[in-house]
Amino acid sequence: METVKLGIVGFGFMGHCDADMMSTFDDSEIKLVAVADTNPEQLKDAPEGVETYNSIEEMLEKADINTVMVSTPNPSHPEMVKKAAAAKKNVICEKPAAMSVALFDEMVAACKENGVLFTVHQQRRWDKDYRIMKEVYDKNMVGDMYVIKSQLYGFNGNMHDWHVYPEMGGGMLYDWGVHLIDQMLDMVKSEIVSLYADVRNVINENVDDYFNIIMKFKNGVTAEIELGTYYLTPKRAWFIGGNKGSAIIDGFNGEGKIVRTAHLLENVPGKITMTAAGPTRSFGPAAPGLLQEEALPEVDVNHRNYFEHFVKAFNKEEEVVIKPEQVRRVLCVMDAVRESAKTGKAIAFEA
Amino acid sequence: METVKLGIVGFGFMGHCDADMMSTFDDSEIKLVAVADTNPEQLKDAPEGVETYNSIEEMLEKADINTVMVSTPNPSHPEMVKKAAAAKKNVICEKPAAMSVALFDEMVAACKENGVLFTVHQQRRWDKDYRIMKEVYDKNMVGDMYVIKSQLYGFNGNMHDWHVYPEMGGGMLYDWGVHLIDQMLDMVKSEIVSLYADVRNVINENVDDYFNIIMKFKNGVTAEIELGTYYLTPKRAWFIGGNKGSAIIDGFNGEGKIVRTAHLLENVPGKITMTAAGPTRSFGPAAPGLLQEEALPEVDVNHRNYFEHFVKAFNKEEEVVIKPEQVRRVLCVMDAVRESAKTGKAIAFEA
Repeated sequence: METVKLGIVGFGFMGHCDADMMSTFDDSEIKLVAVADTNPEQLKDAPEGVETYNSIEEMLEKADINTVMVSTPNPSHPEMVKKAAAAKKNVICEKPAAMSVALFDEMVAACKENGVLFTVHQQRRWDKDYRIMKEVYDKNMVGDMYVIKSQLYGFNGNMHDWHVYPEMGGGMLYDWGVHLIDQMLDMVKSEIVSLYADVRNVINENVDDYFNIIMKFKNGVTAEIELGTYYLTPKRAWFIGGNKGSAIIDGFNGEGKIVRTAHLLENVPGKITMTAAGPTRSFGPAAPGLLQEEALPEVDVNHRNYFEHFVKAFNKEEEVVIKPEQVRRVLCVMDAVRESAKTGKAIAFEA
Repeated sequence: METVKLGIVGFGFMGHCDADMMSTFDDSEIKLVAVADTNPEQLKDAPEGVETYNSIEEMLEKADINTVMVSTPNPSHPEMVKKAAAAKKNVICEKPAAMSVALFDEMVAACKENGVLFTVHQQRRWDKDYRIMKEVYDKNMVGDMYVIKSQLYGFNGNMHDWHVYPEMGGGMLYDWGVHLIDQMLDMVKSEIVSLYADVRNVINENVDDYFNIIMKFKNGVTAEIELGTYYLTPKRAWFIGGNKGSAIIDGFNGEGKIVRTAHLLENVPGKITMTAAGPTRSFGPAAPGLLQEEALPEVDVNHRNYFEHFVKAFNKEEEVVIKPEQVRRVLCVMDAVRESAKTGKAIAFEA
């Protein structure tokens, strides 16, 4: 097995996160050789034994690396990817990979031309909550599904660092949208026939901090992805509704359950339930024992899995898991989201 | 003050409910004079002292009434309303008033021609949960609002009685949709510029038992109305999100709260929160004291208020509260909902 000899360009918040992750690998798998940043301040706490450089050019010239991780600010991703590819290095790019589909295509072409691997760090495909729901989906655990909801609500309307600047790729659609959309497309694996969206600046003047995206898939599933940083009821939730039950997650750690009914109610006579809002025959409380709860499937995943897969791809044991065409599709969805939000129209996406 | 002398035509489930309601009024306000039903079985438990008839014609001919409440099955509403109007009786019609806008227009025209009052029993405009949220809306209690959600989830996939037959006006869009849409239009009072919807038969073969309706209003509010009879997490919920807080209801009785932040977080440095799903700077738990809860406004309403208003309208002290043009708009929205669900397109409603 050959070693991934890695150089990280851009040693800010994510560069540091990525370096921490590399330290969990054996040097024979992934060895962090060098980090580069144009700001010398950022390099001060580089891990011991790791070379530091003031530019990607210097790192590409001097460091003994075969792979570059691009963790620079979003607008510089295309430049960095192209430089790394030209130097015949494999490339792992942070997300959002590019701020337009056209730029992304250039990055993909550069890597293809130079015969190097290209993948994007969409590590949230190994989020526990997502993987549990993917199990429910893949194993048809709630029968024929009609709706899948993915919700992320926060209390923090204001954003950190560069996320408040649109020209830096700020806003929540780029930051989390790219993950939540990627998860949904990876789960449903069907064409999107209609997309409708709302995108807002609730607290932030210049960047989006709320969005709601509805995607109707060809296979009959409707997906709804909603995020609000200033929703004030903090929560990470999932809901999958099917004709044999509902699967529910409420929590980053995948806390939740599957609910089914002991039997289906038959056509019932005119007996009513009084609620404070008056009579209802369809929405009163369920009879004891009617609703039955089951545990959600268990999964054992974490973000390190992303790099474990990369090591295998590097050694030609498998293809890269996060494929450029998948990343491109997410970017196309984001374009459609913005168009729908702006025009009020549904986008006939992939129809 | 003149007395509303009422005859109910159609003495089934709702006819009985309506009769019960009348018994809470003093005879000088509303006096239930007669009930009519073509099925003699239904008349067996008519309240003491109330005349019974085997047809609307007989009741209109013989009973000393000035107002007819139409509680027959949905498809017969137009016929009943027209007969009552022709006999110069005021008309209160059960919902859904009509199964098409064209039929509704005929009913309105008949009442207008005969100079009688016409209104529809949209009594859920006096639901407590709705009225609390209307207070939040009217008094701008959460600042500039971006989203209003109205959700109703049940455990009972199968429906009762005639609700399983499309030709009887079955399905949840007609049963509850008509109320939930009416509430939203009564609250927001702005033009709908774009509508998008999903309508499903999850458990029922022939009628809808799930719908999700998104309406973007001209005033900047996006409303989302979602109902599922087989959602399996029974709940009546509201959410209003604004830039000064969120208002939340979870329960038929209006249980809920307003949540605000003690201060807005400023642009923060790169400090992170570790969650089970990895690092996040926007969605970790809130610092103690940041989220502050307030009570929702109190309201004192009940479904009897609908008839109290009718008594006033009957005595020319006010206009009818549920106006035909409002009911018509709800029917138009339902048509747009069905069209959007069928075509996958957003409907440029009222734009």
